[in-house]
Amino acid sequence: MNPNDVIKKTFIFNSLDEGEVEDILRISRERRFSKGETITQEGEQGDSMYILFDGNVEVSKTLTMKLEEGDFREKEKILTRFKAEDNLVFGEMAMIDRENRSASVATTTDCILLEIEREDFLELVEKRPQMGVKILRRLAELLVSRLRQSSQDVIRLTTALSIALGS
Amino acid sequence: MNPNDVIKKTFIFNSLDEGEVEDILRISRERRFSKGETITQEGEQGDSMYILFDGNVEVSKTLTMKLEEGDFREKEKILTRFKAEDNLVFGEMAMIDRENRSASVATTTDCILLEIEREDFLELVEKRPQMGVKILRRLAELLVSRLRQSSQDVIRLTTALSIALGS
Repeated sequence: MNPNDVIKKTFIFNSLDEGEVEDILRISRERRFSKGETITQEGEQGDSMYILFDGNVEVSKTLTMKLEEGDFREKEKILTRFKAEDNLVFGEMAMIDRENRSASVATTTDCILLEIEREDFLELVEKRPQMGVKILRRLAELLVSRLRQSSQDVIRLTTALSIALGS
Repeated sequence: MNPNDVIKKTFIFNSLDEGEVEDILRISRERRFSKGETITQEGEQGDSMYILFDGNVEVSKTLTMKLEEGDFREKEKILTRFKAEDNLVFGEMAMIDRENRSASVATTTDCILLEIEREDFLELVEKRPQMGVKILRRLAELLVSRLRQSSQDVIRLTTALSIALGS
């Protein structure tokens, strides 16, 4: 696949026309990572977004917290694997709010990614607002869908906790 | 406060200029509710967004699920109260994705709200894309912030569950 096709297939860009896809490509930087490298580290700062172009990655996220110094409980993690065909975009949360990365992403093969920096993204959506609206609408849809999923997880966990505590 | 000031103070519209606030006002419909009325019902369909203009409301959300027919466990709910000065916007998730309402909102006093319908909102952000970008950027910021909060809840609950199960 060429980079244009990859961009066109990612959810947040899938309403763009050919010319607009070219604009995205212009602000994207090709990044190559070797197998086993960390692309984003949970908790660290960062403000760029990535599109997986070639190779496989593993997304991991801490699921329990360390309660005190003497607590040697292993932090539990969830792990999800993605390949290029999954049209994965990640890093868009930190790109929006400049806060810490919500998950770690590491390569499990050699990988090629497209990186889009926050400043370039914001400049583009402001200079090309019609395109900006298309992208930001999709981004809002993506975030709403994740928020609904996360809320569902909260409901499941509260139910499980309520049963575990015998209430 | 007049409706313009209320719109200007709500987070998703707080980067708009005077003329743009007028545009929002033009697509807003004033809705009056008596004390004790339900504005949105969790789980029901709906696709408009509301801004609390005058009065107090109570937002409630189911926190545990009913596991089977014979299960008489009360569904636990979280309740949050808001007054007009909190500049509450709600219903924006269903406005974006047309799925079910994620929470119920009921009035605890007589209330005045501004309602914005999905179709009018989308027509406006497309016709006035520069303004659309401003609103959608704020909306993305709001959703990212909620998503981070919800993820934090998942971490706290998983930790509590891990302790409750003695693992």
